[in-house]
Amino acid sequence: MKAPRIRFGADYNPEQWDRTVWAQDFALMNEAGVNLVSVGIFSWAELEPCTGEYRFDWLDEVMDGLAAAGVMANLANATANPPPWFSACYPDALPMLSDGSRLWPGARQAFCPSSPVYRKHALRITRKIAERYSGHPALEMWHVSNEIGNHNALCYCDASAAAFRTWLEDRYGSLEELNRAWGTTFWGQRYSEWEQILPPRQTTSFGNPTQDLDFRRFSSEACLEIYRAERDLLREITPEIPITTNLTPNHLELDYWSWAPELDTIAVDHYLKANDPDGHIELSFVADLSRGLAGGAPWMLMEHSTSAVNWQPRNIAKRPGEMVRNSLQHVARGADAIMFFQWRASRFGAEKYHSAMVPHAGTDSKIWREVVELGEVLDRMGEVANTTLDADVALVFDWESWWALEARSHPSADVRYLDRVHALYRALWETGITVEVVSQNVDPSGYRLIVIPSLYIADAEIADRVNQFVSAGGCAVVTYLSGTVDENLHIGAPGLSGAFHDSLGVRVEEYFPLREGEEVALDDDSLAAVWTEMVHLEGADALVTYKDGPLPGVPAVTRYRYGEGTVWYMATRLDRETVGRVLKEAVKTAGIKPPIPMVTAPSGLEVTRRSGESGSYLFLINHGTDTAHVRAEGRDLVADRDVGGTLSLLPGRAAVVREESG
Amino acid sequence: MKAPRIRFGADYNPEQWDRTVWAQDFALMNEAGVNLVSVGIFSWAELEPCTGEYRFDWLDEVMDGLAAAGVMANLANATANPPPWFSACYPDALPMLSDGSRLWPGARQAFCPSSPVYRKHALRITRKIAERYSGHPALEMWHVSNEIGNHNALCYCDASAAAFRTWLEDRYGSLEELNRAWGTTFWGQRYSEWEQILPPRQTTSFGNPTQDLDFRRFSSEACLEIYRAERDLLREITPEIPITTNLTPNHLELDYWSWAPELDTIAVDHYLKANDPDGHIELSFVADLSRGLAGGAPWMLMEHSTSAVNWQPRNIAKRPGEMVRNSLQHVARGADAIMFFQWRASRFGAEKYHSAMVPHAGTDSKIWREVVELGEVLDRMGEVANTTLDADVALVFDWESWWALEARSHPSADVRYLDRVHALYRALWETGITVEVVSQNVDPSGYRLIVIPSLYIADAEIADRVNQFVSAGGCAVVTYLSGTVDENLHIGAPGLSGAFHDSLGVRVEEYFPLREGEEVALDDDSLAAVWTEMVHLEGADALVTYKDGPLPGVPAVTRYRYGEGTVWYMATRLDRETVGRVLKEAVKTAGIKPPIPMVTAPSGLEVTRRSGESGSYLFLINHGTDTAHVRAEGRDLVADRDVGGTLSLLPGRAAVVREESG
Amino acid sequence: MKAPRIRFGADYNPEQWDRTVWAQDFALMNEAGVNLVSVGIFSWAELEPCTGEYRFDWLDEVMDGLAAAGVMANLANATANPPPWFSACYPDALPMLSDGSRLWPGARQAFCPSSPVYRKHALRITRKIAERYSGHPALEMWHVSNEIGNHNALCYCDASAAAFRTWLEDRYGSLEELNRAWGTTFWGQRYSEWEQILPPRQTTSFGNPTQDLDFRRFSSEACLEIYRAERDLLREITPEIPITTNLTPNHLELDYWSWAPELDTIAVDHYLKANDPDGHIELSFVADLSRGLAGGAPWMLMEHSTSAVNWQPRNIAKRPGEMVRNSLQHVARGADAIMFFQWRASRFGAEKYHSAMVPHAGTDSKIWREVVELGEVLDRMGEVANTTLDADVALVFDWESWWALEARSHPSADVRYLDRVHALYRALWETGITVEVVSQNVDPSGYRLIVIPSLYIADAEIADRVNQFVSAGGCAVVTYLSGTVDENLHIGAPGLSGAFHDSLGVRVEEYFPLREGEEVALDDDSLAAVWTEMVHLEGADALVTYKDGPLPGVPAVTRYRYGEGTVWYMATRLDRETVGRVLKEAVKTAGIKPPIPMVTAPSGLEVTRRSGESGSYLFLINHGTDTAHVRAEGRDLVADRDVGGTLSLLPGRAAVVREESG
Repeated sequence: MKAPRIRFGADYNPEQWDRTVWAQDFALMNEAGVNLVSVGIFSWAELEPCTGEYRFDWLDEVMDGLAAAGVMANLANATANPPPWFSACYPDALPMLSDGSRLWPGARQAFCPSSPVYRKHALRITRKIAERYSGHPALEMWHVSNEIGNHNALCYCDASAAAFRTWLEDRYGSLEELNRAWGTTFWGQRYSEWEQILPPRQTTSFGNPTQDLDFRRFSSEACLEIYRAERDLLREITPEIPITTNLTPNHLELDYWSWAPELDTIAVDHYLKANDPDGHIELSFVADLSRGLAGGAPWMLMEHSTSAVNWQPRNIAKRPGEMVRNSLQHVARGADAIMFFQWRASRFGAEKYHSAMVPHAGTDSKIWREVVELGEVLDRMGEVANTTLDADVALVFDWESWWALEARSHPSADVRYLDRVHALYRALWETGITVEVVSQNVDPSGYRLIVIPSLYIADAEIADRVNQFVSAGGCAVVTYLSGTVDENLHIGAPGLSGAFHDSLGVRVEEYFPLREGEEVALDDDSLAAVWTEMVHLEGADALVTYKDGPLPGVPAVTRYRYGEGTVWYMATRLDRETVGRVLKEAVKTAGIKPPIPMVTAPSGLEVTRRSGESGSYLFLINHGTDTAHVRAEGRDLVADRDVGGTLSLLPGRAAVVREESG
Repeated sequence: MKAPRIRFGADYNPEQWDRTVWAQDFALMNEAGVNLVSVGIFSWAELEPCTGEYRFDWLDEVMDGLAAAGVMANLANATANPPPWFSACYPDALPMLSDGSRLWPGARQAFCPSSPVYRKHALRITRKIAERYSGHPALEMWHVSNEIGNHNALCYCDASAAAFRTWLEDRYGSLEELNRAWGTTFWGQRYSEWEQILPPRQTTSFGNPTQDLDFRRFSSEACLEIYRAERDLLREITPEIPITTNLTPNHLELDYWSWAPELDTIAVDHYLKANDPDGHIELSFVADLSRGLAGGAPWMLMEHSTSAVNWQPRNIAKRPGEMVRNSLQHVARGADAIMFFQWRASRFGAEKYHSAMVPHAGTDSKIWREVVELGEVLDRMGEVANTTLDADVALVFDWESWWALEARSHPSADVRYLDRVHALYRALWETGITVEVVSQNVDPSGYRLIVIPSLYIADAEIADRVNQFVSAGGCAVVTYLSGTVDENLHIGAPGLSGAFHDSLGVRVEEYFPLREGEEVALDDDSLAAVWTEMVHLEGADALVTYKDGPLPGVPAVTRYRYGEGTVWYMATRLDRETVGRVLKEAVKTAGIKPPIPMVTAPSGLEVTRRSGESGSYLFLINHGTDTAHVRAEGRDLVADRDVGGTLSLLPGRAAVVREESG
Repeated sequence: MKAPRIRFGADYNPEQWDRTVWAQDFALMNEAGVNLVSVGIFSWAELEPCTGEYRFDWLDEVMDGLAAAGVMANLANATANPPPWFSACYPDALPMLSDGSRLWPGARQAFCPSSPVYRKHALRITRKIAERYSGHPALEMWHVSNEIGNHNALCYCDASAAAFRTWLEDRYGSLEELNRAWGTTFWGQRYSEWEQILPPRQTTSFGNPTQDLDFRRFSSEACLEIYRAERDLLREITPEIPITTNLTPNHLELDYWSWAPELDTIAVDHYLKANDPDGHIELSFVADLSRGLAGGAPWMLMEHSTSAVNWQPRNIAKRPGEMVRNSLQHVARGADAIMFFQWRASRFGAEKYHSAMVPHAGTDSKIWREVVELGEVLDRMGEVANTTLDADVALVFDWESWWALEARSHPSADVRYLDRVHALYRALWETGITVEVVSQNVDPSGYRLIVIPSLYIADAEIADRVNQFVSAGGCAVVTYLSGTVDENLHIGAPGLSGAFHDSLGVRVEEYFPLREGEEVALDDDSLAAVWTEMVHLEGADALVTYKDGPLPGVPAVTRYRYGEGTVWYMATRLDRETVGRVLKEAVKTAGIKPPIPMVTAPSGLEVTRRSGESGSYLFLINHGTDTAHVRAEGRDLVADRDVGGTLSLLPGRAAVVREESG
């Protein structure tokens, strides 16, 4: 039985290098403290160079080398990209765009997720690999495919059409029910045979919104089916080996709430966006969402980068210390593995400018020195593994609402789902309290505050749960366009007031979106943009009202005492400060406290606590520009020294204090 | 024989609702004073759910209910969107874009306008409906299809290619004549067989401009053919029922001058653009164009909106009073029907956020209260029906010039047809005089002033008419790029001076377009942009010249005394004030007066007069921010009270005064 | 044996005009001094109106008329655009875009460059024309096709795929070698059969960069194959007639370094870009590049414009004198022919707004008067023909680096190849010295300074030549991303320091691209943008360092004394002034002098010297706003008068002084 540890490593693609490099790799892995590498992700064409001809010698050698070096393998089933022979034999398995054009080989994932012939060949190579490496001493876990659906989730070909119809038959049972759900009486679209139904290919004007939504539901499910089939086969052959696949939670196309239960451990990829000035907060959001997907359990950061990536328009290199800080942020929010893409920077191919653990500059480099430093820190932190976080606030995140809210036929193109999600999350982050990102199936009763940014689709069940939670004393914050439509995108009986109508205490009569760039003044002297609506108070109080714009005097923010609880409603796109003020009030009303008192801590100090059988660990990360002084007692596992009373944390630095009991 | 009345109503789509809602609909229609609804526009799939199987029970019930409620039906022949079974059976009838990709079902109008099989099926359902409802007491008029060609006017498929060839054979008689007209000696494009001719699909570089123009002519005609065929069939079955279709006059693709004579009454749809600060003037333009299409006769506003639409990037709700004001503007300019899309806001589909007469909020709403108010006003104004307007100025509007002027191979991409049309119209609007928008086939002799914005294509005939009109004492205002080319887009003998050369009194040697964002100063201290040209005076006087830019000292605006008349020529894109000044001078020179003296009226007061056998009606609409005080005597049909001497009109309000004779 | 002369003329397209115009044409050509016209470029459809039916009567008449008028013909083989019958018979020969859609007839060059059937038909018409006009007295030279590949260079169809595979087999010999070069181990792309290889059609993500590069190499070669085949046939029939085709050197798709040796004389087209404030410098660059392609020999300006073109978004007319000035700039840099597109402005077609020698306004026009003036000047300058220029500095220009540097998967989308090429060229232009633009195969030993802007791909050979050149005392200026990859785009052993590592004296550890619009301050108070990198000095001195940004204190510009020579390295995108300062220092260090001392000459004076057996000619062109005073002795061939001591040149004017010896 091994001691708990934080996994540390990267994607390892030895097939890109001569064997002479492999020995250097193993030595450097040991130097850095690497204990797990993902192998074989893009190796299908190397392992099955022609259909039915296999060549495992090189992978045998790699696996044996890893075992000898004491590095474990997160072994891929190699199905991420089919070999050129596959596409040449089965051109109908290429993905199709909504305009009917094909996507061709040359990059990766050039297959239709619903293609039966792709699935057949993927299972064949999966079986070969599983049977060969079953029982290999280096085999620690299975890595199914790679970022499934990242490039090909939405395929409009005839095979997808057939699979879509089957999925719809399952969902609706009858055409009559589908016609009702899709509202086909509008624009005369009633279907009389299943065969008439197609993916939402390019149209003359706005397509049917429910068809669009169902196609996204289907597509997420079609991608998940790939995972399920390959996982089932792996489980059959190696029942003792855990199985996962790397999710990209900030990605639009896949509803990971339905994926999460299928993974033995949640594994995610996360990359900073160059143009986001609050990248460290966005990182926290994705980490909290990953923990939410894991149901609170530890999760794996399967990929991030040591420095710049290569796929953004401008790829910003990480500043000194940033990579270590990013890594500890993930651990602070529940990650028990810190992995990178990739081990050694490629000399060729489309990602040769993506940073790696071993950069083009070699070991005499900022990157390598920080990799070694991080390895040491994570090694000291092994005891943190398996500990968990507590949160009193739940923020609801919903892929279906994201899909549906941004439909082209809506009142304003400026309403963007992530905009309000990130705004509310950021305001919570700045209060210092710990947030859990949850699905709309959440039971709110385990929290004190539930935050609901633009949950456009809400069924009666979630609305009931929220209403009961609030009437029993919970707090809630809701923004515009929440609960507006049911699962079929129908506007319900309360009109535009939506499913949360009862606990909001307001009636929404009509939407008044703003013009591009238009701002309206509020009576608290802030400015709002994008969205306003004609709100009538029905029990709630107006906290803020419009001073000008289309609706002077009308409430912009309301507060309603409903039963024992309180609900805040934001009827407009408030600016950062006002969102912050409302959230601060809600947090205070709900009686939620951060892990440590934040009064004297400067802005930008991130604090979380993980605890479990091994103890309690205070994570402190200083994103600000001033030194932070924090009361703490225990041992700082980063600096590897005792902390007695006050810990002073320089800008950019992190501490992980094993807290002394008492 | 019924008393004259203004028709009032909406598109009515009862198939989207349970029967229980229908009874409420009829009651509310009566409450609002609705007297006409358009029924069945998108009902093909409901009426013929499978090919050749019909289901009329629900429509029977609706028609009977309307008749019982005293509401008449503008009954559609339901061909606006073919049912899914049609597209599934005949995929070749789907429209094709110029890149060869198809447009698929899911929205509406997913058919090629030239498709023979579409036309066959459309006539079959038309016959069924016409035969069934011939003689029905609710049937008042026929609504053929819906916004024909709005989404599918330009189809590049092989069926369109075949129809295009037939159209070209009709137009040119011989290939030799086509080769001459298209100038196929340029770039070596001579055709030797008709079969070689294609629609202007995507090309390596600029396509043949005359091919492009002829394809637009053909496409407008192909859409009109749809109307003609369905109309002929309806006329055959119900010769006593008037027939129309709803035009969208601000739409690029269709040349409604050739459509207008085919309609029993002109019906148009008009929606405000959210980003137009002069939306009320653009509305006036479309209304005057609609009256022009109707040859001066009353016309129907078949669709507008009670508040926001849903298909613009940001959909702006109407402010209190705006919907009534918009409606009266249309009546003020000749509309005898005020109809909306749609009666009851949809709960689902792509337009559920489009406003309606019965909004999602129900009757306790701004919209419903204004609908009822408007119904009362229009009811009082019944006597205005069938009266007409007089105008002394004609503004020439020409779809072919619009199509041709904005070709990609032209001197400047910044030259936009509507830009000058709207600029000249706006200047006239601000003088308070009434304008008629006319085609280039106009006989100018009925007017005192003819305004010709960038009439790029002009044949010798229109040029002759204008020259004779001016030499006989008429006034004309002409802007750059008028008469530059003949109907085949050939530059004629006078070079760039164009067809109006004789009456302009200038010679144009060379174009000097300006750079993006560049402005040149004029000697009246205004700024011009986009376009300048080397003008030589040949009889005209320079009113304004350039102070800088490429042509310092060269005339920018000229005035020519030609025969007994006067012609102003604008050789550059003047700013708003300068256009206004020139037009004011032209109006004054032509001796044209507004319906009432405007001296003391504040800016933004719109005044028109309709008159006829029933009397004379002064329309006053205050778009300004100050109260307007106007001399008037009679009865204000809006406020329902007598006006004696001076009428004070608050900002945003309208009056319609039945003028006392004397 | 004729006296040397500057050729003067235009594309002549008489087929667009009635025969009655032809006689006027010949008379006007004589009036203007035209001595050469390009005939028949787009005449295929006129000469072969149906497949295999020929009609040469009109061209016979034109050729005879030219001969009678003493105007020589640069006769085209008419293959620039196949007739409509060709595309109708062989639709598979239409070009295909990367999305699989076709480009259709209607413009020009609507054929796949690799199409065997196109090539067959092109050779058939070539043979017909060559046989017919072999020995005709007007025939001076052959004009093969027209701007080959300008619109269709990149075709992704199956015929292109087949030709691409053949080209790859030639290049690599074995699939194994191709797999190695393309790095197909990355993303699992190993090919096991040649048939699996495709053009880089649209993909899910970034395609294989080496596949992209090889496809560009192949496509340039495929277009050149068209030229070679037609030239070989013409040479066979008329071995005594020189053959050329008109290149567009500022064009991305074709690598003219491989084309140049195949042309009997280099002929180029050049058009000013409306939005380039330094158009006269860009013109100089293209002229110096043209001379570079000609290996220093005289070349022909086959097309430019008398005034505006028609294919830019805004087409700027030339100011008085500009056309003469442009023409003399080309002669000043080695052109022995000044030709225009086109002789007479078209009345129809896609280029009717393109200026011509005979404009729409006729001969009473600025354009015609300047054409006549230019004809006189060029006639007096006949003796300049066959003289050449000397240059001490070589600027390396490389199409392959251009193709490869701007790949989508790179660190920054803001790195643009022409940006640095033009910046360095402009700095040299402003020092007044004469530059030769050369390929990376240049032998630097003939120069004193070699300037290397972002030569992304560099093999060991060029790096060795540069290193030896510098160590032997030469000077070099190198900018970032030079020599980064080998011909297969693999990053080599020195990591990011690249192939020029030895002579740069710096090591590059990591790239730090900047954000959009971001600027960093340098310690010389200038600002840099787009690009920075972590540079370590390894022998070089830091001339300028960063004051802020991601790398404060790190060198931005270095200078290295390597052997006897000196190398400057620019590690960031310096602003105009700083580039100028560094280049001035390099020019001074290298000991290079302009043709005449420039001390008192105002900014904007362009000076070159052509010399040869006939004498030495000083070209002076004043682009500035002040009169220039220059020491010169001899006869000014422009003004046709003697210059004794000082020549004063007004702004916008040019002089060509035949220098007196001594």
